[in-house]
Amino acid sequence: MRIHLQNPADDPLFDFSRAQWDAAVARASGPGDEHDVSIGRTSSDFTAAMTDAEALICDVSVIKAQFPHGMTIAAPRLKLLFVTNAGLDGLAPFDWLPPGTILMNNRGTHAVKSGEFGIMSVLMLASQVPAMVTNQRAGHWRKLWGAVLTGEPIAIVGLGSLGGAVARHAAGFGMAVTGVRANPAPHPHCARVIGTEGLDAVLPGTRFLVLACPLTDATRGMIDRRRLSLLPNGAGVVNIGRGELIDQDALCDSLDSGHLSGAVLDVFTPEPIPPGHRLWTTKNLIVSPHTAADDPATYNPVSLDLFFENLRAWRDGRPLPNRFDIARGY
Amino acid sequence: MRIHLQNPADDPLFDFSRAQWDAAVARASGPGDEHDVSIGRTSSDFTAAMTDAEALICDVSVIKAQFPHGMTIAAPRLKLLFVTNAGLDGLAPFDWLPPGTILMNNRGTHAVKSGEFGIMSVLMLASQVPAMVTNQRAGHWRKLWGAVLTGEPIAIVGLGSLGGAVARHAAGFGMAVTGVRANPAPHPHCARVIGTEGLDAVLPGTRFLVLACPLTDATRGMIDRRRLSLLPNGAGVVNIGRGELIDQDALCDSLDSGHLSGAVLDVFTPEPIPPGHRLWTTKNLIVSPHTAADDPATYNPVSLDLFFENLRAWRDGRPLPNRFDIARGY
Repeated sequence: MRIHLQNPADDPLFDFSRAQWDAAVARASGPGDEHDVSIGRTSSDFTAAMTDAEALICDVSVIKAQFPHGMTIAAPRLKLLFVTNAGLDGLAPFDWLPPGTILMNNRGTHAVKSGEFGIMSVLMLASQVPAMVTNQRAGHWRKLWGAVLTGEPIAIVGLGSLGGAVARHAAGFGMAVTGVRANPAPHPHCARVIGTEGLDAVLPGTRFLVLACPLTDATRGMIDRRRLSLLPNGAGVVNIGRGELIDQDALCDSLDSGHLSGAVLDVFTPEPIPPGHRLWTTKNLIVSPHTAADDPATYNPVSLDLFFENLRAWRDGRPLPNRFDIARGY
Repeated sequence: MRIHLQNPADDPLFDFSRAQWDAAVARASGPGDEHDVSIGRTSSDFTAAMTDAEALICDVSVIKAQFPHGMTIAAPRLKLLFVTNAGLDGLAPFDWLPPGTILMNNRGTHAVKSGEFGIMSVLMLASQVPAMVTNQRAGHWRKLWGAVLTGEPIAIVGLGSLGGAVARHAAGFGMAVTGVRANPAPHPHCARVIGTEGLDAVLPGTRFLVLACPLTDATRGMIDRRRLSLLPNGAGVVNIGRGELIDQDALCDSLDSGHLSGAVLDVFTPEPIPPGHRLWTTKNLIVSPHTAADDPATYNPVSLDLFFENLRAWRDGRPLPNRFDIARGY
């Protein structure tokens, strides 16, 4: 198969290398597998490769630069487009996608790192680390006692690879795990799963609220001022989904008033957070710079393994595990 | 048995209540168990109880107030003294202990909370949370990438109830766990255990160093400037033992220079940290106010269960699991 990897023009940290590709091929290849691969960085690399590429692997920044909205670029043989990000909300509307090309996201690659970041955040809230950091900023020694996780009620909104990984750790610590998602099918690491329409009923009994769902029309602004007020006094919030899932000003107000005891946020509106923004100084709030999900040491190998898994499914005529559903938004 | 519980004069947070006592008795009592219990707070409560008490349960602050150094108070029937702290280094020399009284500490009660605080701290170091917090203090958005724990080398100094609990979590996350202790017997959650004399050889291969040992003459100043320099660039340090285990100034210097990537400390010299001390502002350092080990919701019930476990051992003539060895210092 003719495959092209296009690295971002301006951020080399997650560049695909030839060595990574060869290693992934060695892990994935079976009898008769033959791949003609190219790796590019510039616009002319990209344009040249699109004349014959059947599969393209790149990140959201490449799509934004090379696939203008309202146009269809010339990619006559392109069948598979694997985007190495999980959330593709920034690429909507999908009018740029060449007809007949299957779009995939990178869900799954982020599970291990996100799961660890998620349970770390819950442990930090349980131990009052956000408040400790606020006191430290003021040079103020004050005993702040924490709780152990056993039996504590946690609600995780979104049970994809991110939320599922957090749920697995939370269950391992003996927490009372409630999952919340559109389709309330049972989940192996949740004591119960509730449909999104049941969120209001879940919040009053939730000590830790973790947002790990994609940003869609259905989830935008889901945690608004009213829903924050439904959380009990002393509750904590973790957001590893998207900043727009939550009313950020209402969240800051709730931290200021002491209703919420803490928050650990990896995502914001906007990013980067502008200088002087209240997010920098709101008490009991930890700012993580949208890096919760990514481990540079393992990101590319895991992404390529996932691409090959989808390629095998495509060749066998099976459903593609990472196929992106444009109507659904994830 | 005639048992007295003396609560601290000035800190009601961890007060023993009659209800907690009754519940513990109900959990622990067997046929023929009869206890005559009193609960006091004032000096006169204490003095009155000591005329006939056979067992005393109290914390370090009560010992310091009621048992003056160089004196032996009148406690003619006292056989068992259960101190509800784990580290009794602050009570040395033990010249105040009435002859024939068995001294116990509270090791074990802190395991669950300390284990969670310890693995939280390691996750924070792996995700660069100390550096994130430093950037947040400056209102500075900068991507900081973390690593997952699988395969990462961690060294845990001290494998008692604290260090053992951290080791269990670390093994659960797939870390390469090295235990370091005076007696290098194998430990179920460590891939290897090294004697303290092998510490120099362990440090260069250690990404995360966790101190969880008691403060004794043998451990005071154990992590000095030379040993900090043996850690590899980018290593992180967690201290849930005692501040005096480490050369605090050398640690701050190592953080300032960037040799260490971060530290999460629960213990300091002195405590409270004085206003204006460099610990408050050293970069990539998280200050926790010596509360890592304690969960107010479970502390007293677990402590009382432990007391009764020791009481049963004493009555049966078995070794007391919490007996404090004055010569050893823990």
